Amino acid sequence: MITRYESNDRLSKVLVANGFAFLSGLTAKDRDGDVAAQTADILAQIDTYLAMAGTDKSKIVVGNIWLKDAATFNEMNAAWEAWVDPQATPARATVESRLAHDSILVEIQVQALV
Amino acid sequence: MITRYESNDRLSKVLVANGFAFLSGLTAKDRDGDVAAQTADILAQIDTYLAMAGTDKSKIVVGNIWLKDAATFNEMNAAWEAWVDPQATPARATVESRLAHDSILVEIQVQALV
Amino acid sequence: MITRYESNDRLSKVLVANGFAFLSGLTAKDRDGDVAAQTADILAQIDTYLAMAGTDKSKIVVGNIWLKDAATFNEMNAAWEAWVDPQATPARATVESRLAHDSILVEIQVQALV
Repeated sequence: MITRYESNDRLSKVLVANGFAFLSGLTAKDRDGDVAAQTADILAQIDTYLAMAGTDKSKIVVGNIWLKDAATFNEMNAAWEAWVDPQATPARATVESRLAHDSILVEIQVQALV
Repeated sequence: MITRYESNDRLSKVLVANGFAFLSGLTAKDRDGDVAAQTADILAQIDTYLAMAGTDKSKIVVGNIWLKDAATFNEMNAAWEAWVDPQATPARATVESRLAHDSILVEIQVQALV
Repeated sequence: MITRYESNDRLSKVLVANGFAFLSGLTAKDRDGDVAAQTADILAQIDTYLAMAGTDKSKIVVGNIWLKDAATFNEMNAAWEAWVDPQATPARATVESRLAHDSILVEIQVQALV
């Protein structure tokens, strides 16, 4: 009924239920990069997690993006637009939030159809 | 399987999948207004987008509201309560976030049953 | 088609539709506590609301957590990990946001399978 991937005692990185894959909010593995590099790092992780769930980026239904600094909106978007399927873009919201560590410039969470 | 409305290379304003309509985070078209005016502006857009998806505000399941200034909670709520179907109110969460531009005082994202 | 619990003119605390329970963002009833106490207070409310919807914490699919101060991440997590079913953890995202009142240190919103 529910399938989970990369689970620990706190959270699951991916959870599939009722026709949807729910991903946890993801941050860059390499936090030395700028916001474009961190965004690309996260989007590559999203590809991996969506594949675990048997789906892909063309089936994302909604994404939420948190930027440490809203002024980096265009840099994040350049990386996003280089990645997203231009024929199959999801609903999305982007706001500013300070994140778990100062080195984290962007966090992205998505939900996809499976 | 997925139907999208008002899509561009970055996002879709509305996406319908698996019985739900997912809207992007929306901000006011007229950013000269105060938070109540901006909220009403957004809610009118939500009516339009929900109609595109074949649904309406009485079927919203959850909404997320971001305020530039949490102190404007009551002004936002006055506009919200003047609009929402009082017999069919959704789950909702409201937090403070700086938004994409300083002139944006509120952003709202909803998901509805179709 | 949609079932709502604890509804008022603004929002419903719980809404069930299409196989999912959507909860509103919840804050502690007792705002004198620290972030761990406020988290535990919210998680007890979540148990109650999930039970209203005929489900429980092992079926949460995704959670969003907003901290007034991202530096309290570990304290929130200690309370979270003491509560969550370690065999059935949800997808989750945690960011910092100022909340509706200065006394509110954490807000949590979840969606569960019913």
